[in-house]
Amino acid sequence: MEQISIVDSKDHVDERVKIGVWLTDKRSSGKISFLQLRDGTAFFQGVVVKSVVGEEIFEIAKKLRQETSMWITGTIHQDDRSHFGYEIEVDNIEVIGESNDYPITPKEHGIDFLLDHRHLWLRSSRPHAIMEIRNEVIRATYEFFNNEGFIKLDAPILTGSAPEGTTELFKTKYFDREAYLSQSGQLYEEAGAMAFDKVFSFGPTFRAEKSKTRRHLIEFWMIEPEMAFMHQEQSLEVQEKYVAFLVQNVIDNCAYELNILGRDIDVLKKYTKLPYARITYDKAIEMLQASGKFSDLQWGVDFGSPEETFLADQFEQPVFVMNYPKAIKAFYMKPHPTRDDLVICADLLAPEGYGEIIGGSERATNYDYLVSQIKKAGQDPKNYDWYLDLRKYGSVPHSGFGLGLERTLTWITGEDHVRETIPFPRLLHRLYP
Amino acid sequence: MEQISIVDSKDHVDERVKIGVWLTDKRSSGKISFLQLRDGTAFFQGVVVKSVVGEEIFEIAKKLRQETSMWITGTIHQDDRSHFGYEIEVDNIEVIGESNDYPITPKEHGIDFLLDHRHLWLRSSRPHAIMEIRNEVIRATYEFFNNEGFIKLDAPILTGSAPEGTTELFKTKYFDREAYLSQSGQLYEEAGAMAFDKVFSFGPTFRAEKSKTRRHLIEFWMIEPEMAFMHQEQSLEVQEKYVAFLVQNVIDNCAYELNILGRDIDVLKKYTKLPYARITYDKAIEMLQASGKFSDLQWGVDFGSPEETFLADQFEQPVFVMNYPKAIKAFYMKPHPTRDDLVICADLLAPEGYGEIIGGSERATNYDYLVSQIKKAGQDPKNYDWYLDLRKYGSVPHSGFGLGLERTLTWITGEDHVRETIPFPRLLHRLYP
Ligand SMILES: [Mg+2]
Ligand SMILES: [Mg+2]
Repeated sequence: MEQISIVDSKDHVDERVKIGVWLTDKRSSGKISFLQLRDGTAFFQGVVVKSVVGEEIFEIAKKLRQETSMWITGTIHQDDRSHFGYEIEVDNIEVIGESNDYPITPKEHGIDFLLDHRHLWLRSSRPHAIMEIRNEVIRATYEFFNNEGFIKLDAPILTGSAPEGTTELFKTKYFDREAYLSQSGQLYEEAGAMAFDKVFSFGPTFRAEKSKTRRHLIEFWMIEPEMAFMHQEQSLEVQEKYVAFLVQNVIDNCAYELNILGRDIDVLKKYTKLPYARITYDKAIEMLQASGKFSDLQWGVDFGSPEETFLADQFEQPVFVMNYPKAIKAFYMKPHPTRDDLVICADLLAPEGYGEIIGGSERATNYDYLVSQIKKAGQDPKNYDWYLDLRKYGSVPHSGFGLGLERTLTWITGEDHVRETIPFPRLLHRLYP
Repeated sequence: MEQISIVDSKDHVDERVKIGVWLTDKRSSGKISFLQLRDGTAFFQGVVVKSVVGEEIFEIAKKLRQETSMWITGTIHQDDRSHFGYEIEVDNIEVIGESNDYPITPKEHGIDFLLDHRHLWLRSSRPHAIMEIRNEVIRATYEFFNNEGFIKLDAPILTGSAPEGTTELFKTKYFDREAYLSQSGQLYEEAGAMAFDKVFSFGPTFRAEKSKTRRHLIEFWMIEPEMAFMHQEQSLEVQEKYVAFLVQNVIDNCAYELNILGRDIDVLKKYTKLPYARITYDKAIEMLQASGKFSDLQWGVDFGSPEETFLADQFEQPVFVMNYPKAIKAFYMKPHPTRDDLVICADLLAPEGYGEIIGGSERATNYDYLVSQIKKAGQDPKNYDWYLDLRKYGSVPHSGFGLGLERTLTWITGEDHVRETIPFPRLLHRLYP
């Protein structure tokens, strides 16, 4: 008798199999028990008929508690009434691990209680579905960048200098000196692009920010590609192709999970249509002012959540907002060729109020310009010595961007809060489990 | 005219193309210049003939310095004398970025000098080849675990408790409390296995260890799979299949890079033959004692580098050493069913003196046993409350292991020091660049 996983039921219809499972719920009458079962790969129903299994097994089935683990044997049948499509007619049950008073019951629980039990909550169907989608987005990310000729080049997490100031950085003693946890691998990826043409990092980043919004995590994962000999227009094409690829793969491979989450696939399908619209920051300001909803808004400010949501709402797909004022963007962005007050950059705003999911730019290539920008920002160019080397020894046009994994997942899954999209969220007041 | 990458030369033989490149070296006579070029994807030669390009371009070519960046146009030709197989007959050169006094010259440099210039050193052919192989091992890791039905479940980096003591942990202020940088995601992956059946983490881990050996990094990447309803024997099969898969993919996809490193493919091919040998710790002690080289060695001790190398030398492939003394292994390992002094575990030793690349075990499933082991280790079970929950609510047999990415790469590439296998190594005295 073959040992299988629930997810593979379709290949074993009318076969007798053995599966290791946990009980999630049950309903019993005098003659039949319906066991809701999970094995980590999927969820389905086990049917235990007293006249088939006999008194002893039927009593065991009746006494099972939530999250008891067991080996079950039985025959897989098609079950067109369930979304999963299959069930098992159980003929034997062998309990492995008991479970008493499992804390997460089918009733409603508060978010703090659920997060305190995140190590168990992940077993529930919604977190399970979200993590399956997260896995698919991770898988598709590697597929995309491998196919496009990028190599993964890991930026370090521990860095020795904190040139932009330490207020939002985590600090640690590193033997006889101090180190900081990375907020971004970008500068290292720029060095990488000069050595490998197209590189990406994909790792955890850290921001010691005292924000408590539904868009912020203290520890989150970023994908940061960097491309040599590439101008911003080509970079935007890579970005939209990548985002559409992620959405398409989730549609193709996670229909079951999207259904559990109640996420409408027809809405997601719109986001696979390319190209995404491109508007300038100037145009965005015009649109916001013309709306009558942002009466105090002046050219030169950065956008907050209400402005981003309004702008995104004017488009069916994600929209690039390009070429922001130099004064509100990072020092390393390439200056606009004809407008001294702008840089060549773009943020990608997700629809439905999910905000910025990508920030990117062409990078400044001129050594003297970079030094002057670093000084203007009140910083010491000495702290950027190795980074400046990249402009001393064969500087080339290059562009890059960063995509926030959890923000992108929050949008794709249609969740309310970014904390739902990472296995063990780190928040202002949460470092457990 | 198409803009291409050097690596795609084979698809453009006898075509005129445009490529963005850097100069790595050159040789000139009065009539012809041979330019050694790289574009990040590969290295090849450009030939500049004065009578073809004319005086002006020929003069530009003659004055090019190491790491100058430029657009070149020309015609791709087959070149059977070079290992790469193609060269370009240059007809135009347009310099993009000058380069004066590039620090890494073709002469020999000391390791500290090279590591100080790691942001530039990555452009050189050996580090370039190693990073291409690293990328291939990363890619193959995702392919393997995706194919085997695992999902990637990211363990957190910042954790709130340090139950095993803080001496080798990096510590940071986390708002109003303290956090530690993860040494391993295993405990979180165990929670994951109970929710998703088969999970793996693949992220950076940190060990504040004052060692300066060629096997130690402060920051390194680990792959940590964890599998529910799985005993140790099946786990060993996953492990050897995974390692052989990595080696096979490097052989298949990185022959060019292995050649640059002088790594013999026939040696690597031996490591793809399965199964790997399995010996017990007891047998290993016997072999070491019988060798006459470790006369003081007593049953019960852990192995160091000399013992591991001796044991590995007795086999053609990597070898599993199984079931170590309980006293020298972690508290969470499953006790041996008939030998009270052993646990069910295995280390995988790489050949050629590269040491342990995998550590793994079946995990203890019994709540009371785990609590007693935690107490025996002088620790407080309260610090393991969420981990112990996994044994309270449907405990199941499960096994897992951890593979160190850089140690595995050091072995596969045949390098002397683990620092060569990570883009920006963090060592006892190195946190730069
Ligand atoms: Mg490549
Ligand atoms: Mg799966």
